[in-house]
Amino acid sequence: MVKINENYLLLQNSYLFVEVNRRAAKYMEENPDKNVIKMGIGDVTKPLVPTVIKAFKDAVDEMADGDTFMGYGPEQGYDFLAEAIIKNDFNKWGVDLDLDEVFISDGAKCDTGNIQEIFALDNVIAVTDPVYPVYVDTNVMAGRSGNIKDDGMYENIVYLPCTEENDFVPELPTEPVDLIYLCFPNNPTGTTLTKDQLTKFVEYAKENDALILFDAAYEVFITEDDVPHTIYEIDGAKEVAIEFRSFSKTAGFTGVRCGYTVVPHDLQFDGVELNKFWARRQATKFNGVSYITQRAAEAVYSEDGKKQIKEILAYYQNNAKIIYDGLASCGFKVYGAKNSPYVWLKTPDGMGSWEFFDLLLNELQVVGTPGEGFGPAGEGYFRLTAFGSTENTKKAVERIKNYFAK
Amino acid sequence: MVKINENYLLLQNSYLFVEVNRRAAKYMEENPDKNVIKMGIGDVTKPLVPTVIKAFKDAVDEMADGDTFMGYGPEQGYDFLAEAIIKNDFNKWGVDLDLDEVFISDGAKCDTGNIQEIFALDNVIAVTDPVYPVYVDTNVMAGRSGNIKDDGMYENIVYLPCTEENDFVPELPTEPVDLIYLCFPNNPTGTTLTKDQLTKFVEYAKENDALILFDAAYEVFITEDDVPHTIYEIDGAKEVAIEFRSFSKTAGFTGVRCGYTVVPHDLQFDGVELNKFWARRQATKFNGVSYITQRAAEAVYSEDGKKQIKEILAYYQNNAKIIYDGLASCGFKVYGAKNSPYVWLKTPDGMGSWEFFDLLLNELQVVGTPGEGFGPAGEGYFRLTAFGSTENTKKAVERIKNYFAK
Repeated sequence: MVKINENYLLLQNSYLFVEVNRRAAKYMEENPDKNVIKMGIGDVTKPLVPTVIKAFKDAVDEMADGDTFMGYGPEQGYDFLAEAIIKNDFNKWGVDLDLDEVFISDGAKCDTGNIQEIFALDNVIAVTDPVYPVYVDTNVMAGRSGNIKDDGMYENIVYLPCTEENDFVPELPTEPVDLIYLCFPNNPTGTTLTKDQLTKFVEYAKENDALILFDAAYEVFITEDDVPHTIYEIDGAKEVAIEFRSFSKTAGFTGVRCGYTVVPHDLQFDGVELNKFWARRQATKFNGVSYITQRAAEAVYSEDGKKQIKEILAYYQNNAKIIYDGLASCGFKVYGAKNSPYVWLKTPDGMGSWEFFDLLLNELQVVGTPGEGFGPAGEGYFRLTAFGSTENTKKAVERIKNYFAK
Repeated sequence: MVKINENYLLLQNSYLFVEVNRRAAKYMEENPDKNVIKMGIGDVTKPLVPTVIKAFKDAVDEMADGDTFMGYGPEQGYDFLAEAIIKNDFNKWGVDLDLDEVFISDGAKCDTGNIQEIFALDNVIAVTDPVYPVYVDTNVMAGRSGNIKDDGMYENIVYLPCTEENDFVPELPTEPVDLIYLCFPNNPTGTTLTKDQLTKFVEYAKENDALILFDAAYEVFITEDDVPHTIYEIDGAKEVAIEFRSFSKTAGFTGVRCGYTVVPHDLQFDGVELNKFWARRQATKFNGVSYITQRAAEAVYSEDGKKQIKEILAYYQNNAKIIYDGLASCGFKVYGAKNSPYVWLKTPDGMGSWEFFDLLLNELQVVGTPGEGFGPAGEGYFRLTAFGSTENTKKAVERIKNYFAK
């Protein structure tokens, strides 16, 4: 008799953004004349840049010709893209990688979700709180958690709170953990770690035979000098860290799907190279990214591509500054924005996250994301994103300022 | 301390096609003047058809314009593609499906590999032998097998042999099994099941609370009347079967990556709809297929698209016939080809699969795939594929005929 994976029953039913969309859609249906501004979901809005578009079309042309048509590609991705990645994303920061340490995929969400498969079920995982839900949910589905408790945390998962009290810098775990998920610049808080702060985690991992799963999907938003662009800038990190990257926010690829994961050969546990395990996982359960997409991703690293993308990033960064400055000016405690497209704010007067969500939606027609949706320590916080148009961003900030400036 | 997933250590090291390529590459290096014809790997060679190319470019243009740019799409795929799929691949055969029973993905390999995640680890799986290795390996990696035995079979996995003795029609399992992987038209044998034969499996599944994982990636090659195009043509199959499909062989998408999986609402075990579990799996560990790719896949179903694709299929089908007829004419026992791009042959004089591989490579400069690589019951058989050029196919067949015709 077929037995289902009962771990799935431990998951909470409603996914955060489903509920956000449900409430926003209901409001808009009931108030069709109102101009609702969406600053909730972290999706880009600017079109792909011309150089990427050209690369796309050139690759499509190749697929139209028998002499240049590409069938199955390497599951790990084409060398031309891995080379561009290593040169631009790592050599630039003094880090060298072998070609076969880079695994090109259809996105960081998939990779951060799938990576746990190469580890035994009895590893203890640690996550920051608030956290990108995929890290937790995929481990729950695999069977590494117990039940969810009344406080919103799963049994057997270690939560590292990030709040204004610790300036959003997680403390090192005080109980034994094996796999530590870190995302910096952080989703959802928009805050990040300095090199010294990240070094402490690398040292902890070394001392405790732990592994850091480092999600650097927002790396391109880093503007401050002391923030590491890759965890491998930290001495010895190749022995204790896997890094995940994405073209989604960098180059507007949310609807195109391309990312990559770095698994250094130096990563060895139980005498096994994790690189070999991940290679086997990908070769067996994945079949590579579209050739066309990989050529488009390569164009992101061309001189023209870089210039064009920089302009778009500047646009989003300016939006983040508008939100940050506007909210700070009317008394909000605001975080993030400097190295991130996310602004994280403390709700006023101890208001709950969802209460604040409803207020913004109903009174000001602005949609954001309740911090509590990212974990218990997110309660009392709220996320706004900088991916809208500058015009709408300004309008939303004005509404908030007018309402809260007393 | 990090603990690795030790199930990975149970996997056999060398992947079939790696070894095939290694031997072929070595021969070509040592014999640079020889003209080697590759009929080993099941990859298409014809370029994408004009209608698909146009859809690709139109979608790329949409991504270049802020008004039509597409960010994150639904993890389950766009309705426009699901609608085209239901109309063309199912309604045509008298089968109706709801839109949310179709899950669009980056390929049947990924889906057939990932599907086991929604089931408990103590399910017993059954596979035909020979078999597409992904079904077995992904279950070994998850922990559903024991060790591999001397006979090349894993403990705790039930093998259903398909040989000339049973005309490549697997017998029903004689011991209890829960998940049964069936691929018809079959990879690697190229043979298929009639409606009556498939009905027996559907009835078995119903009587035994088992589930059929039906891989129909080669459906488009079906030419004979009595062969089901979807398992849902069989009465009651919606209660016992998940079906996997691919655009890879249909439309030359091996390097583009698009497929889909059907999980009917009627599929319920332990009071749970499997559809909900797969939806949750995909929403958490996957992020949808490129919008551009989905538009290209939609074009496969346009009137022009269908016409153009039919021509390419006819080309491959003609190649299959050339191989089949040529080999049969010089005394080989040959199978498949009629509803498949694969020709499966019995090696002459009881020769081993790899021995025959080496003979074809070294004496005739033809590369095929040893049947033993697909499972113990494949020993003594050999696979040739029809995806090359007709010119090369004819040349290879001539070489084989000249050598073996006595």
